[in-house]
Amino acid sequence: MLKIEHIGIAVKDMAASIPLFEKLLNSPHYKTELVEREKVNTAFFQSGDTKIELLESADPQGVIAKFIEKKGEGLHHIAFEVADIEAEMKRLKEEGFTLLNDKPLPGADNKMVCFLHPKETNGVLIELCMERKRET
Amino acid sequence: MLKIEHIGIAVKDMAASIPLFEKLLNSPHYKTELVEREKVNTAFFQSGDTKIELLESADPQGVIAKFIEKKGEGLHHIAFEVADIEAEMKRLKEEGFTLLNDKPLPGADNKMVCFLHPKETNGVLIELCMERKRET
Repeated sequence: MLKIEHIGIAVKDMAASIPLFEKLLNSPHYKTELVEREKVNTAFFQSGDTKIELLESADPQGVIAKFIEKKGEGLHHIAFEVADIEAEMKRLKEEGFTLLNDKPLPGADNKMVCFLHPKETNGVLIELCMERKRET
Repeated sequence: MLKIEHIGIAVKDMAASIPLFEKLLNSPHYKTELVEREKVNTAFFQSGDTKIELLESADPQGVIAKFIEKKGEGLHHIAFEVADIEAEMKRLKEEGFTLLNDKPLPGADNKMVCFLHPKETNGVLIELCMERKRET
C-alpha cells in the first residue's frame, strides 16, 4: 500500500457535480472517462498527491445507482496504490480479507484494480490499484 | 485546498479496528487521541502523504455514534489541508457552501478545523484543517 491513490464519490448528476467540486476544490477537473465494464462515468480532480474521482452510474442497474439507492450520494471507496497488485492480493487473502475479484481487472485511469469486500473492513469499500502496463 | 490531509472512518470498536487496519495497510498506527470537544476517540495511520483517521464514539450520544446508527460503519469525512483556514472559510461561504462552524475549532492532531454541511457537497462531509499555531 504505497499511498491513497484516489477517493471515489458517488453522485447522481455528474453535470451538476463537476462544477460543484470545481468550486469546492478551487481547481478544475482534468479528465472524464466512461468505464465500460462497470457502466460508470468518472471525472477526476487532483488534490495534492491524491485524486478525487466522481462516479455517476451510466446504467440505472449499475453498482453506483444501486449504492445511491441504498445509501444516498457520498463517499464510495478508497483506492490504494500498490507496487505489485497480485502480491498485495495474495497478502490480503492470507490475512483473511475477501477479494471481490480473483484477478486484477481493468479500471478507470489506466489502472488494474481489485476490490475488497467491505464486510471485513468496517464497511469501507477498498480498492487496490496499479498502473497498467502499456501494450508494446 | 492544498491536499487531502486525512480520511475519517467511523468504527464501532476501536480495539478491534486498529489491528484490522494495521493488517490492511501493512503498517502500524502511529497515535491515538481523545478529542474531548467531540467525544471521539481517534487513531491515526500514515498512507503516503495522507492519513487515515479511525473514529470511535466516546459517548453513546456522540456524533460518531449517531452516524453509525444512521448509516453504519464506514467512510465518514474527507479533510483538506488549507494554508489559511479563515480565508478558505470566507471563500467557500461566498461560493454558497454552508459552514457548520463560524470560527475554526480545535480538532484532533493539533489542527484548527471547520466542517461544511454535506447537503451541498453530494452528501460528503468535508473538513478544512490547518496546523494550529503553538502557544509561545
